[in-house]
Amino acid sequence: MSSKFIVIEGLEGAGKTTAIQTVVETLKQQGLSDLVLTREPGGTPLAEKLRGLIKQGVEGESLTDKAELLMLYAARVQLVENIIKPALAKGTWVIGDRHDLSSQAYQGGGRGIDQHLMASLRNAALGDFSPDLTLYLDVPPEVGLQRALERGELDRIEKESLDFFHRTRTKYLELMAKDDSIKKIDATQPLEKVQGDIRHTLLAWLKNID
Amino acid sequence: MSSKFIVIEGLEGAGKTTAIQTVVETLKQQGLSDLVLTREPGGTPLAEKLRGLIKQGVEGESLTDKAELLMLYAARVQLVENIIKPALAKGTWVIGDRHDLSSQAYQGGGRGIDQHLMASLRNAALGDFSPDLTLYLDVPPEVGLQRALERGELDRIEKESLDFFHRTRTKYLELMAKDDSIKKIDATQPLEKVQGDIRHTLLAWLKNID
Repeated sequence: MSSKFIVIEGLEGAGKTTAIQTVVETLKQQGLSDLVLTREPGGTPLAEKLRGLIKQGVEGESLTDKAELLMLYAARVQLVENIIKPALAKGTWVIGDRHDLSSQAYQGGGRGIDQHLMASLRNAALGDFSPDLTLYLDVPPEVGLQRALERGELDRIEKESLDFFHRTRTKYLELMAKDDSIKKIDATQPLEKVQGDIRHTLLAWLKNID
Repeated sequence: MSSKFIVIEGLEGAGKTTAIQTVVETLKQQGLSDLVLTREPGGTPLAEKLRGLIKQGVEGESLTDKAELLMLYAARVQLVENIIKPALAKGTWVIGDRHDLSSQAYQGGGRGIDQHLMASLRNAALGDFSPDLTLYLDVPPEVGLQRALERGELDRIEKESLDFFHRTRTKYLELMAKDDSIKKIDATQPLEKVQGDIRHTLLAWLKNID
C-alpha cells in the first residue's frame, strides 16, 4: 500500500486533536507507525511565522481577506513542498490537522471570497495535489465555539461572528457532498462514539485502497 | 488633475533611491507637495514583516518560488488596499519604490514562474489596479550588482546568479515594449544625465494627462 495523506477538518471545538489521536492509534494498530503529523496553517518554521501573523494580525493594521488567503497559501505551499510531499515520497503516511478544505470553507464560505478567485489561487498554489482522505468533524458552530471558549483565549479568527461560522459550516457540508474523499463524522456525539465512528470510517476506507 | 500612482523600477543598483528624489522634487516644483512614498515589498507593518521573511528567508528552510510569490502578493494587497488606494482616493499622489512589475520581472523572468500562473495570481490579488506611470531604470546586471556590492551586504535575492538578473532584465525590457505606461531611462549614464532624463520624461508625461 502506498503512503497516504489523511486530513482532519472541522470548526473550532469540533474535536480535531482527539480525532487525530484516534487516527494515529488506529493506523498504528494496522502496523503503520512511521507517521508525520502536520498542522495548518503552519508546520514549517516559515509557515509557523505566517501562522502567527494570520492568527494574531499586526497591531493597527487590518488584514485584508485576500492577503490572509495569500498568506495561507504561502504557508501551505511551504508545508506541501518541504514536508508532505517528501514524506509521502519515502513511504511515510501524513496526518494533517487541517489542509486546503479549511481555506475553502473559512475563506470561501465564511469570508465569501469569490469562488473563481479561490479556484485559480488553489490551482496556482497546489496544482492537483490533494488529501487521500479527509475526516470532517461536523458540529454546529454554537457547540464548537462553546468548547473553544472553555479552552481559553480566542484568536483573531475564533473571534468572528456566529454567522461567519455558519457560512463556514455550510461550505464544509457543500464541498463534502461533492467529494467522495471527504467523510463526515458527527462530532456532537459522546466522545466514545465519535472515536468509534472515526475508527470504523478509517478501517473501512483502508480496506478499499491499494 | 486626478491623483496618480508613479512607480520606479529597475534592477539592484539601478539608482532607484536617487530617481525617487528626482521625481519628488520635480512634482513639488509642479505644486504637487502632498505625496505618499511607498516601497515594495513592504510599506505597511504587516507587509514589512513579510519583506523580512522574503529578503532574509528562514534558517534551515528553503523558500519555494511559489510561496515567495504568494507572500509578495500578500504584502502588495495590504499596501494597495490600506495605503495606496486610500491615498489616491483623497487626491494624494503616490510614488512607489517598486510595484507589481518587479514580481513580473524577478519571479516571472528571473525565477521563470509560469506566465499563466503569474497572470492568474496577479489578477486574483490586484484585479485591474496598476500604476499610471512606471519609470524603468535600465542597467546591465553587471553594472547594477557592482553598485549594490559597493553599498554593503547582499540579501537573499541580491545573492542570485548573474543569469537570474539577466533573465530579470530581459523580462523588464519585454514588458516595457508592450506597455506604454512604462518608460525606459538609461541608468548607465552619468547621474546628472539620468536625473535630467527622469525630469524630462516626467514633465512630458504630466503635460499629456488629465
